[in-house]
Amino acid sequence: MTDKGIIVGEADQPHVRDESVLVRVVAAGICGTDLAIVSGHLSVPFPIILGHEFAGYVFQVGRNVKKVTVGTRVTSEINLSCGQCFFCKGNIPTQCLSRKAIGIDVDGAFAEYIAVPEENVHSLPKSVSYEEGVFVEPLAAAIQTMKMSSIRNTDTVVVIGDGRLGQLVVQATRAIAPHARLLMLGMHESKLAIAEKLGNLDLKVNVAHDDPKWIVLKETSGLGADVVVEATGNPDGLNLALALVRNRGIVALKSTHGQQVLVDATQIAVRELTLQGSRCGPFDEAIRMLKDGKVNVKPLVSTKYKLARAKEAFEVAKKPETLKVLLTAAT
Amino acid sequence: MTDKGIIVGEADQPHVRDESVLVRVVAAGICGTDLAIVSGHLSVPFPIILGHEFAGYVFQVGRNVKKVTVGTRVTSEINLSCGQCFFCKGNIPTQCLSRKAIGIDVDGAFAEYIAVPEENVHSLPKSVSYEEGVFVEPLAAAIQTMKMSSIRNTDTVVVIGDGRLGQLVVQATRAIAPHARLLMLGMHESKLAIAEKLGNLDLKVNVAHDDPKWIVLKETSGLGADVVVEATGNPDGLNLALALVRNRGIVALKSTHGQQVLVDATQIAVRELTLQGSRCGPFDEAIRMLKDGKVNVKPLVSTKYKLARAKEAFEVAKKPETLKVLLTAAT
Repeated sequence: MTDKGIIVGEADQPHVRDESVLVRVVAAGICGTDLAIVSGHLSVPFPIILGHEFAGYVFQVGRNVKKVTVGTRVTSEINLSCGQCFFCKGNIPTQCLSRKAIGIDVDGAFAEYIAVPEENVHSLPKSVSYEEGVFVEPLAAAIQTMKMSSIRNTDTVVVIGDGRLGQLVVQATRAIAPHARLLMLGMHESKLAIAEKLGNLDLKVNVAHDDPKWIVLKETSGLGADVVVEATGNPDGLNLALALVRNRGIVALKSTHGQQVLVDATQIAVRELTLQGSRCGPFDEAIRMLKDGKVNVKPLVSTKYKLARAKEAFEVAKKPETLKVLLTAAT
Repeated sequence: MTDKGIIVGEADQPHVRDESVLVRVVAAGICGTDLAIVSGHLSVPFPIILGHEFAGYVFQVGRNVKKVTVGTRVTSEINLSCGQCFFCKGNIPTQCLSRKAIGIDVDGAFAEYIAVPEENVHSLPKSVSYEEGVFVEPLAAAIQTMKMSSIRNTDTVVVIGDGRLGQLVVQATRAIAPHARLLMLGMHESKLAIAEKLGNLDLKVNVAHDDPKWIVLKETSGLGADVVVEATGNPDGLNLALALVRNRGIVALKSTHGQQVLVDATQIAVRELTLQGSRCGPFDEAIRMLKDGKVNVKPLVSTKYKLARAKEAFEVAKKPETLKVLLTAAT
């Protein structure tokens, strides 16, 4: 690729710092955040190479790299952190005060090579393919939803959004709280069917045909859901979530659409609701879930494109019926 | 009063049910919620007698009343609950699925008499005056903020809003987490001075003169506050709170202004923020704080009017420099 632009990177190998490793990217995934950046709703430094979900192998290591060796199959955390601030000292580098996110703030993985700090790298077990490895980052983000919102086996959980993230959220919920009552609301029969099978849904609701509020209230004896996960990628999702959650319940916010939403803040106070944001999650747990077969991401790959055809890939990724689109290495 | 309308009630004694007590209202307080109703931002069944903060003495008891006796000095919880639903069975009657709130959904305490269920009644210790008793309901609501947001001694807490509720929040914070670092943002020197004295503030900030974000970041080494309590009663308060809270921090929502607010929901996800609503709180704890002198509400009374002059009282209560306006019995 020669057109260094907002989407894909050039062939030159990035400079490898002493504490970094150079990864040959084998596969990378297009995420809702990428689409929000391309659509202009999320702003990033321009020009930038996007891509923050990827897997590959270590091609070169910096002088001070201690544990990672050339040839290791890896994926990488996306947050470049300072190691010194309140959050880094508290072992929350994902919220580092001066964090830069790969593919969002600095050049990302829609390229042949990417250099990342050694500390960000996680090796992939043999049984986890590169294409599965692409899902470690978004699966970790889905797991983070459960962690921040403390989802329990006794909860009724409604996931709004049958897209890329919603699919991982239902599977992660099943893995972490296998006895939770799990409903998904979506607009696409094919995606809902995938979620029903992989997430063992208790109920799928196509909001194109059915009134979600009526159904959720019926399913919860008029109470509303204990937890509603807003994973629509759409500004309308938040108000639907508020309509479906019970008093004292939790709305877990996952969407990063970058748009302003009109909210009735008074009902949050009066109904004693919790709105809980969550972002990046634990890579180790995501890798373990993939290795143990608790999460099955293969059916979530809608299609693959070689990196050179990234622009076509983005067009397909934008379509509502598409799940994950992968960009793969030329060789 | 003969004009049964939105504000004050008529002289007729309400019917006392078997499980209820009739309270002679001695003093009642005008709250932000009352003002939001009168301004039309919060809708209620009309016509209705407002008033949900009050104290008085028991004038008559229903046939099945067991513990409360005539003459007892009391205040009352505002939620009429069913005793049967998910929340009532879980000992959260304040969120009863069919709750009706006194002075909001059913006739309230801006009247000579009010009938309330025995179970709602709390007796006032001798050392707590009727006028102090009016503050039990809003003080309990302030305490509820601490409970729902788990405010700790190690937290830096910013309270936005120097009004009626903000004043009680800073005092409740001091009582519950005496070592918390406590800042108040407001627009009125006189109110900020009262909060500084009664809440032993670490810092007061007049946002009419100083940039609140600059100051809060300076005071927190660029981090932002652990907890920001939004008690402005104003739709702009929420976005200021989001600007002042640290990543992974808590915005405690108290305002019930009834207006829609434009919010950047993406930053709630990305910064892993918690928005925590809270409403009514524990009367027992509020009464104990007043009895023990941990909270001093007397300086919060701006002025008093006889019930017959309720309309004048409301006009004064609307003025930004006013704190609590009391309506008192004619005799």
